[in-house]
Amino acid sequence: MDRRSFLKTSALGGSAAAATSLAAPAYAQGKRTLTMVCTWPRGLAGVWDSVERVASNVSAATDGQITVDTKAAGELVGALEVFDAVTAGQADMYHGADYYFVGQHPAWAYFTAVPFGMTAPEMMTWYYGQDGMALHHELGEVFGLRSFIAGQTGAQGGGWFRREVNSADDFKGLKFRMPGLGGEALSKLGASVQNIPGGEIYQALSSGALDATEWIGPWSDEKLGLQEVCDFYYPAGFHEPGAALSVATNLEVFNSLTPSQQKAIEIASADAHQANYAQFIANNGPALARLTSGGAQLRSFADDIWDAFGSASVELLNSYTDDDLFKKIHESAQASLRASSEWLSQSDSAYASQRNRVLAAM
Amino acid sequence: MDRRSFLKTSALGGSAAAATSLAAPAYAQGKRTLTMVCTWPRGLAGVWDSVERVASNVSAATDGQITVDTKAAGELVGALEVFDAVTAGQADMYHGADYYFVGQHPAWAYFTAVPFGMTAPEMMTWYYGQDGMALHHELGEVFGLRSFIAGQTGAQGGGWFRREVNSADDFKGLKFRMPGLGGEALSKLGASVQNIPGGEIYQALSSGALDATEWIGPWSDEKLGLQEVCDFYYPAGFHEPGAALSVATNLEVFNSLTPSQQKAIEIASADAHQANYAQFIANNGPALARLTSGGAQLRSFADDIWDAFGSASVELLNSYTDDDLFKKIHESAQASLRASSEWLSQSDSAYASQRNRVLAAM
Repeated sequence: MDRRSFLKTSALGGSAAAATSLAAPAYAQGKRTLTMVCTWPRGLAGVWDSVERVASNVSAATDGQITVDTKAAGELVGALEVFDAVTAGQADMYHGADYYFVGQHPAWAYFTAVPFGMTAPEMMTWYYGQDGMALHHELGEVFGLRSFIAGQTGAQGGGWFRREVNSADDFKGLKFRMPGLGGEALSKLGASVQNIPGGEIYQALSSGALDATEWIGPWSDEKLGLQEVCDFYYPAGFHEPGAALSVATNLEVFNSLTPSQQKAIEIASADAHQANYAQFIANNGPALARLTSGGAQLRSFADDIWDAFGSASVELLNSYTDDDLFKKIHESAQASLRASSEWLSQSDSAYASQRNRVLAAM
Repeated sequence: MDRRSFLKTSALGGSAAAATSLAAPAYAQGKRTLTMVCTWPRGLAGVWDSVERVASNVSAATDGQITVDTKAAGELVGALEVFDAVTAGQADMYHGADYYFVGQHPAWAYFTAVPFGMTAPEMMTWYYGQDGMALHHELGEVFGLRSFIAGQTGAQGGGWFRREVNSADDFKGLKFRMPGLGGEALSKLGASVQNIPGGEIYQALSSGALDATEWIGPWSDEKLGLQEVCDFYYPAGFHEPGAALSVATNLEVFNSLTPSQQKAIEIASADAHQANYAQFIANNGPALARLTSGGAQLRSFADDIWDAFGSASVELLNSYTDDDLFKKIHESAQASLRASSEWLSQSDSAYASQRNRVLAAM
């Protein structure tokens, strides 16, 4: 069934539906349902909440003119098929992590996370205070999409290790599960980078098929039970310092919406980005406390490891700059990061460090 | 003129206006104008942008059903009269900093900033991920308001000093401009705390009537020219580690809106909180660079000064806990801060610190 054509006919002025029957009040009033395919399993903690928050707020703010029909991974298309489904018009919108689509264009990575990139506050700065959103739209238009960031996990943890790592040399041959550009950077350190699904990580660590893994953060990692098979947790990592999730709407569909419906999608997405970040931090704090009181030992990577992470990440990102649009987005993001990081470091971070020290001593 | 009664009559079903004249299509369609009085002068950098962002997004998301008519300080009522104007129904909404209204109830401070309190990401965590918003509503209902945070300056700078301060003793007798609870805490260190308007600070520093001042942050401070009359800038301060701004609607007016109009106000406010934070960070970074290249010398407060800031702040906040609602809000916020700060410190801050070090060396 060519569902979208039907919806467009019924929604644009509502003439077809209204003319045929007064018993179809939904279409007579211009109501329509948009199908949103997701890269996530239904109910995935935190992530699925941002799906539902966007969907319910778009419906509420448009007074029910729009219903967002959410489809988890596999319900209509597979997780990684959502991009093609929306660009082809098989579905109206997707909710996912744009860096899954670096095969379509490497610059998608910048709208989730790149290694050695921005924290969530820095992402907010670039996206809402500078050029980030406009560049997301520019990239989306190449593929017939209107994209907005609409979720945020915050900084992802450095990972769980069966043995401590004390220098960059310790990464040589280390069997480390890390997908995406982070994994590519890590392989430059000599690690044996694996990419296996979340559900298989626990067993792989138990059997020794893996030496180390990253997942999301304390809240999510605890649910996988990683603390049961690894003694050492490194809270700070280089690979996803703030991971945004996105809602993308087929551009033709988006352009057929009224300006107020478009605005509802825009601000519901912004609200979800902030609220989802809040939700992850609110849950990661208590989870970290449970993990450490349960015996997880916290460690920090040594300076020479950070040096190696940095060199590998910068080299990797620079390797894509022969693409003009990647270069434009890369340079905008890096300039933003360098300009904002000094103030955030000197004000917020310096304050929080002193406050935490003083309160802990009271 | 009893403007609100007229609006309510015309909006609830639109019967009065629709019955009297077909020449009043705005009311016949349920359109209404809400008057928003502000504690700010029109055009105040950053702050006024959040006023306009909320107003235009509420109008856009409601498809023009609601127009927000913004009134700067003095245009309808004075800056500090907005609270009484909205609770009394003289105006429909206000946009302001809730800590201006600690005279009405001390707990209002928690919805802007308290000394030694939360950074902006920590505020997001408490407000959107935990109990903060519900408590804001509970406090608002005491006064007949529905409140949402809707702007954010980020961390406010520690201040501009004509002479360096090297220990807590250097604050004894120091003529320091700092309003609000921060100023009250500072007076516990023996400072001679002044509260003078922004427009008079430059002259007071020039004449020696002031030794030091805080204002907002590099972007705003530079506009006042504080760098011309003080050599030393302390980027990190204790008094407003993240200052939220609020939109409050008269509760009777809010309850007369449709659920979709209420939702539009809610998510437009959340969007403005995030976007305004982004705007301040985006502008503070380059401003800090200009200030230091122009000769401003950056300093950090010594540990014993932070110890004194902390003791004074905690003592001050505890002094209000005989009020049950203050105590409830205080304990919720402090518990949130303690739970989230450890993860943020171990992940985001530790990462950003290493990344900044490595990138600076490249």
